[in-house]
Amino acid sequence: MEKRVHSIVEELSPTLLKWRRDFHRYAESGWVEFRTASIVASTLQEWGFEVKAGREVIKPEARMGVPSEAFLRQQEQRALSQGAVTEWLPRLSGGFTGVVGILDSGRPGPTVAFRVDMDALDLQESADADHLPAAEGFASVNANMMHACGHDAHTAIGLGLAYVLSRMKGDLRGRVKLIFQPAEEGVRGARSMVEAGVVDDVDLFFACHVGTGVPLGEVVCGADGYLATTKIDVTYRGVASHAGGHPEDGKNALLAAASAVLNLHAISRHSGGNSRINVGVLHAGSGRNIIPNHAAFKLETRGDTSEVNEYILSRAMDVIHGAAAMYGVQAEIDIVGKADSSSPSPELLPYIRAQASKVAGVTSIVDTRNASGSEDATYMMERVKQRGGLASYLVFGTTLAAGHHNEKFDIDERVLGIGVQTLALCALCAGDR
Amino acid sequence: MEKRVHSIVEELSPTLLKWRRDFHRYAESGWVEFRTASIVASTLQEWGFEVKAGREVIKPEARMGVPSEAFLRQQEQRALSQGAVTEWLPRLSGGFTGVVGILDSGRPGPTVAFRVDMDALDLQESADADHLPAAEGFASVNANMMHACGHDAHTAIGLGLAYVLSRMKGDLRGRVKLIFQPAEEGVRGARSMVEAGVVDDVDLFFACHVGTGVPLGEVVCGADGYLATTKIDVTYRGVASHAGGHPEDGKNALLAAASAVLNLHAISRHSGGNSRINVGVLHAGSGRNIIPNHAAFKLETRGDTSEVNEYILSRAMDVIHGAAAMYGVQAEIDIVGKADSSSPSPELLPYIRAQASKVAGVTSIVDTRNASGSEDATYMMERVKQRGGLASYLVFGTTLAAGHHNEKFDIDERVLGIGVQTLALCALCAGDR
Amino acid sequence: MEKRVHSIVEELSPTLLKWRRDFHRYAESGWVEFRTASIVASTLQEWGFEVKAGREVIKPEARMGVPSEAFLRQQEQRALSQGAVTEWLPRLSGGFTGVVGILDSGRPGPTVAFRVDMDALDLQESADADHLPAAEGFASVNANMMHACGHDAHTAIGLGLAYVLSRMKGDLRGRVKLIFQPAEEGVRGARSMVEAGVVDDVDLFFACHVGTGVPLGEVVCGADGYLATTKIDVTYRGVASHAGGHPEDGKNALLAAASAVLNLHAISRHSGGNSRINVGVLHAGSGRNIIPNHAAFKLETRGDTSEVNEYILSRAMDVIHGAAAMYGVQAEIDIVGKADSSSPSPELLPYIRAQASKVAGVTSIVDTRNASGSEDATYMMERVKQRGGLASYLVFGTTLAAGHHNEKFDIDERVLGIGVQTLALCALCAGDR
Amino acid sequence: MEKRVHSIVEELSPTLLKWRRDFHRYAESGWVEFRTASIVASTLQEWGFEVKAGREVIKPEARMGVPSEAFLRQQEQRALSQGAVTEWLPRLSGGFTGVVGILDSGRPGPTVAFRVDMDALDLQESADADHLPAAEGFASVNANMMHACGHDAHTAIGLGLAYVLSRMKGDLRGRVKLIFQPAEEGVRGARSMVEAGVVDDVDLFFACHVGTGVPLGEVVCGADGYLATTKIDVTYRGVASHAGGHPEDGKNALLAAASAVLNLHAISRHSGGNSRINVGVLHAGSGRNIIPNHAAFKLETRGDTSEVNEYILSRAMDVIHGAAAMYGVQAEIDIVGKADSSSPSPELLPYIRAQASKVAGVTSIVDTRNASGSEDATYMMERVKQRGGLASYLVFGTTLAAGHHNEKFDIDERVLGIGVQTLALCALCAGDR
Repeated sequence: MEKRVHSIVEELSPTLLKWRRDFHRYAESGWVEFRTASIVASTLQEWGFEVKAGREVIKPEARMGVPSEAFLRQQEQRALSQGAVTEWLPRLSGGFTGVVGILDSGRPGPTVAFRVDMDALDLQESADADHLPAAEGFASVNANMMHACGHDAHTAIGLGLAYVLSRMKGDLRGRVKLIFQPAEEGVRGARSMVEAGVVDDVDLFFACHVGTGVPLGEVVCGADGYLATTKIDVTYRGVASHAGGHPEDGKNALLAAASAVLNLHAISRHSGGNSRINVGVLHAGSGRNIIPNHAAFKLETRGDTSEVNEYILSRAMDVIHGAAAMYGVQAEIDIVGKADSSSPSPELLPYIRAQASKVAGVTSIVDTRNASGSEDATYMMERVKQRGGLASYLVFGTTLAAGHHNEKFDIDERVLGIGVQTLALCALCAGDR
Repeated sequence: MEKRVHSIVEELSPTLLKWRRDFHRYAESGWVEFRTASIVASTLQEWGFEVKAGREVIKPEARMGVPSEAFLRQQEQRALSQGAVTEWLPRLSGGFTGVVGILDSGRPGPTVAFRVDMDALDLQESADADHLPAAEGFASVNANMMHACGHDAHTAIGLGLAYVLSRMKGDLRGRVKLIFQPAEEGVRGARSMVEAGVVDDVDLFFACHVGTGVPLGEVVCGADGYLATTKIDVTYRGVASHAGGHPEDGKNALLAAASAVLNLHAISRHSGGNSRINVGVLHAGSGRNIIPNHAAFKLETRGDTSEVNEYILSRAMDVIHGAAAMYGVQAEIDIVGKADSSSPSPELLPYIRAQASKVAGVTSIVDTRNASGSEDATYMMERVKQRGGLASYLVFGTTLAAGHHNEKFDIDERVLGIGVQTLALCALCAGDR
Repeated sequence: MEKRVHSIVEELSPTLLKWRRDFHRYAESGWVEFRTASIVASTLQEWGFEVKAGREVIKPEARMGVPSEAFLRQQEQRALSQGAVTEWLPRLSGGFTGVVGILDSGRPGPTVAFRVDMDALDLQESADADHLPAAEGFASVNANMMHACGHDAHTAIGLGLAYVLSRMKGDLRGRVKLIFQPAEEGVRGARSMVEAGVVDDVDLFFACHVGTGVPLGEVVCGADGYLATTKIDVTYRGVASHAGGHPEDGKNALLAAASAVLNLHAISRHSGGNSRINVGVLHAGSGRNIIPNHAAFKLETRGDTSEVNEYILSRAMDVIHGAAAMYGVQAEIDIVGKADSSSPSPELLPYIRAQASKVAGVTSIVDTRNASGSEDATYMMERVKQRGGLASYLVFGTTLAAGHHNEKFDIDERVLGIGVQTLALCALCAGDR
Repeated sequence: MEKRVHSIVEELSPTLLKWRRDFHRYAESGWVEFRTASIVASTLQEWGFEVKAGREVIKPEARMGVPSEAFLRQQEQRALSQGAVTEWLPRLSGGFTGVVGILDSGRPGPTVAFRVDMDALDLQESADADHLPAAEGFASVNANMMHACGHDAHTAIGLGLAYVLSRMKGDLRGRVKLIFQPAEEGVRGARSMVEAGVVDDVDLFFACHVGTGVPLGEVVCGADGYLATTKIDVTYRGVASHAGGHPEDGKNALLAAASAVLNLHAISRHSGGNSRINVGVLHAGSGRNIIPNHAAFKLETRGDTSEVNEYILSRAMDVIHGAAAMYGVQAEIDIVGKADSSSPSPELLPYIRAQASKVAGVTSIVDTRNASGSEDATYMMERVKQRGGLASYLVFGTTLAAGHHNEKFDIDERVLGIGVQTLALCALCAGDR
């Protein structure tokens, strides 16, 4: 079977590159992946997948960090002008840019799900000649949006996987679900798909990432150690007053924020694991001689475990409310991102290793590796495991031109074929597990 | 009439000294003036005054800064052993050490009230030979209690005044009320007497103080500018925990207090007048490696006006509660003292000047003078003025051996006669106003 | 003499309006009054004044709050395109927009100086039809710059005064100096003119303001009570680091700033007078998950007296440096504005009253009135008084359409003539004092 | 050989109990172990050990957390009255209560060192009947000092070990050093013995502890994971002033401390391992209406590694000095305790296991176990390892009546014999390694 997979992917190879570079050129950030998602939906449908999209696969109130209505509308217009598939836009409109493609073999067998993410970062891509996407003309044409984390590759791998499976449907048992998720950056999107029930029927779940420091040719079967995290935006609203004339009439939002910030950082360590807290941005006040009536700050909490993160988060809420009470200001708190920690199912690792070992170009396979940072596919993994399924998070190594989130980030595109083959085998052999 | 007053006071002079030195020797601090008050009550009764005491003149729940039950009992025992008048103790028991003596002429006329205070300071008196009370053997025998503010003289003046009026009852019109107040130090006692209605029927009200920087022979008719103030004790109770082993289990009372203290001092200035805030004492925690579960601090607010003080106080409450909420600790807040600002009635000043000018030994009379600090007779003054009466606060100058609240504080006792005569004339001539 | 003055001003009246509206239309903010100053300089020269400008009258290093070189250049270009007088620009270039015109009678007599300010505020003027400047077409054409404090009127009064004196030079004794000051807003400009020696030879000094709540027809001879103030910009520079990966590598500028802000507001009150402190603006950090390496905040201190302000300022410096030391960040502190308190010379008030009383349209004259806020003419007043001269600050009342610093601020232009006449008489009669 | 050891210890058993109970009864806290140390020194000498004591084995300036001179003198007097050995006191006087006994076999072989600690805790022992030492009459007679951590047992084991080795000197090769250390509580004493060179010539080093949650019969060959820690006392000295009258004259030590405390707790986490910081005690100020001129606080830092602890410590110093600078107060910083982290030498564990396995009563032997808290024997371990030796930290399990540092702490004394035998074998067999 791996021969067949290999030959299809070989033949598909130029198309994989074309896809990846097209998504790269029209980079779209979280919740505004209108063009990307519409192309994915349209393509999957063409290949015989049952396609669900928009509110079918995204629970509206479970979305986090959604941009303003005005921005959503403006971005949708732009997507249209850049080749979005018109028929699909109404379902994605308003920031419902998730797509799920289902391929049912009609034969008994497990439901196997794959999740890829589609969003770009808020970053201006380098125009330097030594940056390959710029030199080759596929650098992002969208100002301040760039695929600097490899989600363009993930989307291309997802499409490639769909193509292979549609060609080999006869070899498949059970069902396959391909989940194209929006807004992974800032860990904002996965929860809304989980809450919509997207993984409730899944037996085997695979998420993946390219790069992350792993060399080309190496496959990590189960990345572990993603930190549980919560992203929070806080706005304090007080009352302005002339600082010389009537300072007593003010309710000082800046002082409330300063006090909150200090006390947030003073939240105790937890004996159950490492924790982090950071207020990364603070803006407050309007003029030197005005009691500031406005302060806004952005913070994040992290923990080795979800329990540790919840502890920090819960204490942070006390501090944020308490500081507001001290100064009589109104607090508006938005959870704009959230991810759990989740370990891969140990039972699944040998299976993944077995598939990866059949793939040409794979030179090293490791069972597990400690990830850094956070990732919201953990939401899906936790839900699958809670319901009795197995889940893992694969990493496909590739050479990076510059680190993730750097304006000169770029990948060795040979990883695309490796990713497609490995995942395809994971789907095709699942009936034999 | 002043002749008669003068001659009675002349004759009384040695007794005035004896009283003052006796009270000085058996100094009793706020709410435990058992010996002093019982002697006052007994003496007034003997001279024909109607005497009210204890709960008749003190509203229990309006008292502030009352010591513990154990201390009250222990002090009452000591008073008994030092010559308190046994019959009166039951009514004063439990910290109800206020006395009011009423002398009714039976003739129509105004109700004229005089207020003197009886309590000593928490201070160890000097035993040095150059300190006259020590040299002459009337230094306080009670450890850590000393009349270092002159209230012993005030009590003696009050008794002298009672004696003169009892002797000259035939010259009196209307009624006289002599108010002997406990717990002026820390501004704790006056409110409870006001709330008991003690000054509700008063037409003319006179409080007085000796010293305060005014030279012997000078009388100030209306001291002004007492700052409104509030004294507050705060206790935070959290949860202890081993700081190395399980820091997350603690609720840190010390951090809550540190945050409260900083933000209390950061309370805004007020355009309506000067304000002050001070956290003067803070004790927290039990061991280096324990998350502190206890913190206690003492603060005071002040303002040029009661409005300014109320602003600072109200903001302080927000801060104290907000800081507690930040750390999930329980806050216990006790108002242990309170005084308003109150200006003397301008209409009353010429009358006082007229009486003082008849007194031998008075060499200078000034209408008004800016006081410093706070004084709770202001409560009585405000109540009298609100109900249509007139009120003032007199200062009788005297030479001081050392400043008020100093361990070597002492007065020139010639001020006693001047005080008695001036106040007696204020009472006796009131019917002619 | 007042007849002559009156008739010249009567005749000049339409021109006064034209000047004021022209300056209003081309509003220029502090240190970029290139057009205004060049027109003033050129006009004074035409009328026979000796004119000093630029570095002759402004000490470079004593300027405060000067904009960036780029902004200065760009504004100078704009001034050129809006009718600045080309010959004068080189001397004003780079933010040296002060002008002094000297008229020497050649006869013995005092040196009399008048100071007017020329700068606009950073404020977008209202375009509403009910705003007269907008309705009549002289609203500011310069975005975000508006004469919302009346300095356009001050400049027009200064020119009118120059014109009258040039016409009546034969009646003058001694010398007159007309000081046109830049950058009064933010109290940034006066110090640099004082340091350049501009008022070192002055015997009588007059500054003035229109409006400030005083009704049309009223003249205040000596406004008093300007608060001493200092305006400070602080920048903290630390080290960025990933908040999840290596928080220990960061030096947190935001935390340093939060700590500074809290402790700045906690600076003690001063018994010598009212004080103020306000951190009005704070911006810090670049991203939620980055240890912030940058924080900038704007604060101001104030005091009833220069001593009180210096106390707050000195304590503020300790706090700013101490907070930087706590977090190992670099502190950059810029004093961007400063003014003293200064009282008018009492001896000068009757003289001013005498002149104002001769002016038609003046219906009320008051000796003194408490000002609010701060003003840097106080620097000049203090220097003049230190060197033995007399100084005062006049207010010419006028009806305001909206308060100072409001986007709909406007004046009743009848104040222009009143101002010119009063000041002209102050100059012309000075020889008779 | 183990037979011989067993039989000697069997016979010594009642004496071991006697010693332990005697030391328990006369509990002495850190640096005042005058009685204990003098008895140890005298006994070792009697048994033929070369004995070094006092300044020979303790570097004066490397001691930490030494009590006041007055307390040292008073305690030495008490020790004398409780049976201290007079001849030895002069060398121990002034807080030099360390003793080292050396037994040289005269034969070639390694230098083997054993370290036991002798100090009690500052804790009042329970007098309850259910507390065995109270019931049996050997509870501490010294107020507020109690052997609640088992160091009385350690000292007894050390003496027992000395006795066995003196009896079996003929079987010994190389040299044995028995180190009796003062002031382990608060991690104050070990550094001064290391700095005096006490372990510089040691090839094999063994420290030990009883209890710590390990059951009776179990021996841990190498306890690991002691946290590096530093104990710090901070005193701020400012200037007092009347809070109402002249607040500006004060330098507020309480505010400096509050600011320090908050910012200390806000010190960043470290990616290199767990860290802790705690300000456990704070006392500041003298009166409600006085600007506090004094504040004292006790803190500790901890880290998984010495590097992490040094990071927290270094940042703490910045905060402490910075907060002092903010308020113009003087900071006095005393390092009153310090311990490193140190892992046991892996090569030594099998040797220890071999010896323990020969001891009757040992039912379980584990190689390593994670300790909690901190321990300053790590200083000696690190020095030995740096100079090429091997080191480990043994735990001898025993049943506890109550946890360490509890007022009802007590041990099952059968651990004494197990400890003596294991350590004796470690000494006697070292020549064969």
